[in-house]
Amino acid sequence: MTDRPDGWLRTAETIVREARALVLDRLRSDVAHRLKADGSFVTDIDLAVEDLVRRRLEAAFPDHGIVGEERDDVRPEAEFQWVIDPIDGTHSLRHRIPLFSTLLSLLRDGHPVLGIIDLPMLDRLYAGARGLGASCNGRRIDLREAEESDIPREVICVGERKQFAACGRAAAFDRLMRDHDHVRTYCDAFGHALAIEGAAGAMIDVDLRLWDVAASQILIEEAGGAFVRLNPTMRSSRKGGHYDVVFGKRTVVDWICTHWEQGE
Amino acid sequence: MTDRPDGWLRTAETIVREARALVLDRLRSDVAHRLKADGSFVTDIDLAVEDLVRRRLEAAFPDHGIVGEERDDVRPEAEFQWVIDPIDGTHSLRHRIPLFSTLLSLLRDGHPVLGIIDLPMLDRLYAGARGLGASCNGRRIDLREAEESDIPREVICVGERKQFAACGRAAAFDRLMRDHDHVRTYCDAFGHALAIEGAAGAMIDVDLRLWDVAASQILIEEAGGAFVRLNPTMRSSRKGGHYDVVFGKRTVVDWICTHWEQGE
Repeated sequence: MTDRPDGWLRTAETIVREARALVLDRLRSDVAHRLKADGSFVTDIDLAVEDLVRRRLEAAFPDHGIVGEERDDVRPEAEFQWVIDPIDGTHSLRHRIPLFSTLLSLLRDGHPVLGIIDLPMLDRLYAGARGLGASCNGRRIDLREAEESDIPREVICVGERKQFAACGRAAAFDRLMRDHDHVRTYCDAFGHALAIEGAAGAMIDVDLRLWDVAASQILIEEAGGAFVRLNPTMRSSRKGGHYDVVFGKRTVVDWICTHWEQGE
Repeated sequence: MTDRPDGWLRTAETIVREARALVLDRLRSDVAHRLKADGSFVTDIDLAVEDLVRRRLEAAFPDHGIVGEERDDVRPEAEFQWVIDPIDGTHSLRHRIPLFSTLLSLLRDGHPVLGIIDLPMLDRLYAGARGLGASCNGRRIDLREAEESDIPREVICVGERKQFAACGRAAAFDRLMRDHDHVRTYCDAFGHALAIEGAAGAMIDVDLRLWDVAASQILIEEAGGAFVRLNPTMRSSRKGGHYDVVFGKRTVVDWICTHWEQGE
């Protein structure tokens, strides 16, 4: 990826840990929020975290670009682009459901080469980079493959049904929920993290933006799992490109892809 | 409840904290499990926790009865009955999904008067007793009521769909999933805890046993919320009585009960 990939990963981890401290501090008081033009909510914590991470990235990587959910792009022509989702799971954060996260990833020529998922309330930081493997709190993740016979007992994480309805996949959601005993709405990057470490067999998440998915792609690949785009030709809207993905243990991902293709 | 209710609550909390330490210690190694006669799994952690809690209860309350998920009843004729679910969410624990819990409650003449939900991996202990209120990690819970207009944005927790199918409520599950944007499968007592502290608007959980539900009933009542039995005439099976319940903020519980009754 570069001549100093592990140094970049350590720098990114340091930045995310500082963001975590900010989040935990801000959560001690009430969280102000407002409705965005796209109908979703943003809190003052989202904005404070993105601004902090942008300042630290600017200082550490002055030649790199930055893409963030809440602010304008910086140096969009650069080879390396940092991608920030300051709070993934803002709905959970607003309601004090402890499963929200901070996501940071690095793209090289559009491909994820480094990714971090941090779950502040669970004290879990997942980090990985191309060729360096993936880890959780410093412990290396080696995804154990599931046997075919284990598939019925694996947990399959999904986003909220409304995400599936938004991209025409409500019937597929309902079919999967009906046909597998352990489909659970562990939405947002909490479900991604469970799939990356193998606690869940797979995560299916749809109608995602780049900052929702880039960290998970490199993390699952480095953990030894499978990552599949369900919409290779990306849908675009006024909000930009949308990704529908399934990733996790290869046998479970294959089962899901077959199951979905049969029904659609 | 008794002349020493807060003393009993402190004793119960001490026992559950000791159980938590045992769980966290045992999780450092592999977890052995076996299939039970009812088709569910039990791990060696379930058994070790129940045995520990029983020993401590026997020593502290030698005249009280004990009901536990994994072992035989003790002194079933006693006025006070301790009810143990050593691991609620065994499927999660087996897969290292950090949302399992230990539940302990006390019934007087069949009615819950004290309850504890402990989530070891989240470091959250919910405790309450009749007349003493409910707390999370020692901080008192006062459930804020939801406005009617907030109901669409409240998170509604549900158990797994297969639980609903098992008691003839699959169609109601599907309808709720379709008609509300934030229905999430935060199954087991993790979802109960979110409703008790008001992070979720309500929890709907069905096909429960006494040890799954007794702690939640007293905790939500002491937090100032509503608790409704959906099957006032209890179904019985070879596994004993089964409870279908909805609890949380009163406006959300009312909305759910109306919604379900309209459809059934």
